[in-house]
Amino acid sequence: MAGLLLVVSGPSGAGKSTVLKAVMEKRGDMFFSVSATTRPPRPGETDGCEYYFISPAEFAKMQEEGLLLETGEFAGNWYGTPRAPVMERLSRGETVVLDIESAGAAQVRERCPEAVTVFLTPSSEDEAERRLRSRGTEAEEVIQRRLLASRKEYMEIDQYQYIIINDSLEEAVLTLDAVILAEMARAERNPRLFSRYRNLRQIW
Amino acid sequence: MAGLLLVVSGPSGAGKSTVLKAVMEKRGDMFFSVSATTRPPRPGETDGCEYYFISPAEFAKMQEEGLLLETGEFAGNWYGTPRAPVMERLSRGETVVLDIESAGAAQVRERCPEAVTVFLTPSSEDEAERRLRSRGTEAEEVIQRRLLASRKEYMEIDQYQYIIINDSLEEAVLTLDAVILAEMARAERNPRLFSRYRNLRQIW
Repeated sequence: MAGLLLVVSGPSGAGKSTVLKAVMEKRGDMFFSVSATTRPPRPGETDGCEYYFISPAEFAKMQEEGLLLETGEFAGNWYGTPRAPVMERLSRGETVVLDIESAGAAQVRERCPEAVTVFLTPSSEDEAERRLRSRGTEAEEVIQRRLLASRKEYMEIDQYQYIIINDSLEEAVLTLDAVILAEMARAERNPRLFSRYRNLRQIW
Repeated sequence: MAGLLLVVSGPSGAGKSTVLKAVMEKRGDMFFSVSATTRPPRPGETDGCEYYFISPAEFAKMQEEGLLLETGEFAGNWYGTPRAPVMERLSRGETVVLDIESAGAAQVRERCPEAVTVFLTPSSEDEAERRLRSRGTEAEEVIQRRLLASRKEYMEIDQYQYIIINDSLEEAVLTLDAVILAEMARAERNPRLFSRYRNLRQIW
């Protein structure tokens, strides 16, 4: 049985990182895909942890060779999902999470139609902005750029299969966990079950 | 927002009643549809509780007048789901559960394509038979008839959206609860959300 490919998008300030971290801790069996980026590391960031920090030339080469499942540009830097680790985990039946923007999600949807897509959103624009500012790590110019990007994200909300409103962290975590559990029980994801019962039918 | 119509089927001995009872207690916001039947009440059964016990003539009249969402025959008796209470609860946004056989599920699927369908099954035929016999309330002839009916149920397993194996009651309850929670977060079930964000788009 192939694993579950879970794509989570949402505007800055939706609380994606917090929700995903909590769900991953709760489940303990998920692989979080680390993106490659041409953006320089921020203080405290480690290569291979938050991102794989690579040069624009390396990025272009990976893209050319088809080694990236999706790519996107933000504020002059490129981001991309290395394909190999995702496919390897999926083939082992594991759940793989991609925390990517809507433009990247569209690429994944096209290449992996079986992907499960979730849009996480705060309850209001004000709340999103408040959360974004509360990080306190970014310049006003960057914040403005992120708010503009958020608006672009909302334009794509109806492309997602699930919408989770992160009003309460606890409920958002419960719902995302439920989406994973429910998707694993989806009939089309369980050919193994069908064949089991096809055998039973023959016995009968 | 319209409520969730949940159809649960599965062979005798799948543990449907136990799982459904547990999920309903856990959630506390679900309406269990009580079927009408022409079968005479068993000792301890109360009209309106396990079933609405009606005469064959009354049943035929309801069917003729389109008051039944689905109907089916078992062991010479007729069973059917009264349409009105189901539709009323759904229009109030409530979750409605139908515990019906695969033939009835097919009728519901046709009439209410938005219904969520779940097939609950024990891990093996032996286990199903063991559970069926452990009730100790039915004659061998009835048990044999139920086993034959189970085989018919399995023939339809691939018509269901979700398959839940009831190996462990706790896990089956968790999974069914997750299916309900996840389905409520489904984008197509949340036009309210879309319109909310459509408004946001206009504001932006």
